[in-house]
Amino acid sequence: MVHHSEESHILQSGQIQHIDRRLDVDRIVAVLEAVLPRNRRPLPLHEPCFGGNEWAYVRDCLDTGWVSSVGSYVDRFESMLSEYTGAAKAIATVNGTAALYICLKLVSVEPGDEVLVPALTFVATANAVAYCGAIPHFVDVDEMTLGMDARKLSEYLKDTAFVRNHCCYNKRTGARIKAVVPMHTFGHPVDLEPLLEVCKTFQLELIEDAAESLGSYYKGRHTGSFSNVAALSFNGNKVVTTGGGGAVLTNDSDIARLAKHITTTARVPDRWSVSHDQIGYNYRMPNINAALGCAQLEQLPRFLEKKRLLARKYMDAFLDVFGVRVFSEAPFATSNYWLNTLLLDEPYACQRDEVLEATHQRGFITRPAWVLIPKLRMYGHSPKMELPVAEKLEQTIINLPSSPSLLVDD
Amino acid sequence: MVHHSEESHILQSGQIQHIDRRLDVDRIVAVLEAVLPRNRRPLPLHEPCFGGNEWAYVRDCLDTGWVSSVGSYVDRFESMLSEYTGAAKAIATVNGTAALYICLKLVSVEPGDEVLVPALTFVATANAVAYCGAIPHFVDVDEMTLGMDARKLSEYLKDTAFVRNHCCYNKRTGARIKAVVPMHTFGHPVDLEPLLEVCKTFQLELIEDAAESLGSYYKGRHTGSFSNVAALSFNGNKVVTTGGGGAVLTNDSDIARLAKHITTTARVPDRWSVSHDQIGYNYRMPNINAALGCAQLEQLPRFLEKKRLLARKYMDAFLDVFGVRVFSEAPFATSNYWLNTLLLDEPYACQRDEVLEATHQRGFITRPAWVLIPKLRMYGHSPKMELPVAEKLEQTIINLPSSPSLLVDD
Repeated sequence: MVHHSEESHILQSGQIQHIDRRLDVDRIVAVLEAVLPRNRRPLPLHEPCFGGNEWAYVRDCLDTGWVSSVGSYVDRFESMLSEYTGAAKAIATVNGTAALYICLKLVSVEPGDEVLVPALTFVATANAVAYCGAIPHFVDVDEMTLGMDARKLSEYLKDTAFVRNHCCYNKRTGARIKAVVPMHTFGHPVDLEPLLEVCKTFQLELIEDAAESLGSYYKGRHTGSFSNVAALSFNGNKVVTTGGGGAVLTNDSDIARLAKHITTTARVPDRWSVSHDQIGYNYRMPNINAALGCAQLEQLPRFLEKKRLLARKYMDAFLDVFGVRVFSEAPFATSNYWLNTLLLDEPYACQRDEVLEATHQRGFITRPAWVLIPKLRMYGHSPKMELPVAEKLEQTIINLPSSPSLLVDD
Repeated sequence: MVHHSEESHILQSGQIQHIDRRLDVDRIVAVLEAVLPRNRRPLPLHEPCFGGNEWAYVRDCLDTGWVSSVGSYVDRFESMLSEYTGAAKAIATVNGTAALYICLKLVSVEPGDEVLVPALTFVATANAVAYCGAIPHFVDVDEMTLGMDARKLSEYLKDTAFVRNHCCYNKRTGARIKAVVPMHTFGHPVDLEPLLEVCKTFQLELIEDAAESLGSYYKGRHTGSFSNVAALSFNGNKVVTTGGGGAVLTNDSDIARLAKHITTTARVPDRWSVSHDQIGYNYRMPNINAALGCAQLEQLPRFLEKKRLLARKYMDAFLDVFGVRVFSEAPFATSNYWLNTLLLDEPYACQRDEVLEATHQRGFITRPAWVLIPKLRMYGHSPKMELPVAEKLEQTIINLPSSPSLLVDD
């Protein structure tokens, strides 16, 4: 690899590099100037848009006093999510991390288990595993999806794992490998079918981390509806927001009941007193946040339309810019394009910070990829496969301003 | 004890009971009719009152788009809490359970440790201990405060525990006893001075569960400011609400920094990328909820005044009702009277459900005490002392409607 080394001019492949050529950073900035509205700087990476019934619904909460655990917006929000995603049930939670943690609990991830997660993801994916006392085990990603590489995982597990009594075990650590948690990076669906195959072969539970992919479809079906349980997020930077919030999606009505039960302190009402039949969590979404969510979901189709048009504009505009491309959905995917992603060709990874600097200076809030999770101190000793693609993407991804409000009519 | 047995007419003490006398349930209902406003039924146990700047501040969040992790209301809410309670720092969280869990983490409660908690409390007190992989160890309560009995705890620990190398150990289980978590029940401060003594003698960390006691003072100082760390709650049923929310209070600026850090995913921003230096939590309070909290805190003194007047009215009105009394603050306490509490004399515990039934039928939402935590299935094997007072109170407490809006001007 040639990261941070402008002098390296022969790639590992042996191909000779255009050493005299560099990214034209001014050109990149000029493209952003052309695509994005001129009347506002800075332009954030992703900001919410409150153009619908937000005021009316939130005001209704305040007028009725129903802001917390009592009130109808939580039920309504859950119904809307279920209807929109096609998952049989949605259970609203306090945030996406809580939803993912509950998903892991629901498939019985136990202390000491390993859980396969992508190396390139937000830290919450691994943290939720750690909250269970389990160990994240890192998997490389696929350039076509930016998400977990099912084919590579399959090869890796053939070498690393074995199945006994319907359980998968890590040959090296001896730990049970219980689940796989692909994350739909920046809203782009991972290739789910081969992943489902891997899960079947190796007896692994699939949990989709759909925190970023509300409005994204894999072969026509909504992400988060392929696994037994999946997690959504409605953080302030997401396609729709509830301030802070998340949801568990499931197609299994027993799991749905259990999810609701354990996210609401596992209450068992008696005639007068209230008991609790297990260690539950205070993870329900407050009604005032759900009210915001209902108003936001009503506008989701419009947001998605604008976001896809903005992505198209970015792709067109960067088409003839040397050394970069805008990431585009895989053939099997319809993406929400949550965060548009400029990919630098590998030889120009060394210019990433230069691009970040120049764009910020002109008021475009851009951002590199997350530091790979296995590089973080607390996960440095976790098991992992070789991660060449994740390592490359870590150096070459630049997220671009992506709010639906940024679409300018031509 | 004579629970549920109207025929028992000789008390354990040998004293003969007035067997021909029973509670006059109609009289109790009549007192509620006299004290409480006549124009609304049902009257909930505690409902929020939004009579201030709630709408203005929430609307400001919607207008600016700052509903989530960005925005100034969280800082403002934390400053207001710190100023009001006298604690050096407040860190807003997603709810009170999360705040308490973080408190336990901050004093280094480890898996396998025991933590002393009252038997009479909301289940979250014990659950937060369990989330740490630690074991709740149940302590009896004091009739004067409804909270942890420091003198009984001291006697118990002399028998049950020993101190070695500045750590306290349970003689029977061998586990380290790390902390004591008194809860200020229904807003009534526990007797903190003897409890601080116990902590000193037995080298225990004190954590106040002040979820119910915002606005309550012990010897003139706000509850939650006596321990290194303490937890508040702003659930919808509390004195002030943020929809869902909580806060960690601390007087130690290093602990405050750490609390903020670990409740916000332990982010370590670099020039461009974001790293994380430990397993953190997504526990920050969203800005829209903090906005609600700011408006509510502005009105807290007025709420407290009304609540104390309502408590006074209850006390006066029940003064000459046979077999019951309204719980009143201890001499060292100034209580917020979060939930007013009718205490049945022990011989009439058997009529508790009759009172609950009659009051509900007339539209007064009343509630018995929590089922004692050690009686819950998941805590049935936890260590505990004898719990005679908690057991008595479990059968004799009835909470009464207590919203500040219920005060009727004479």
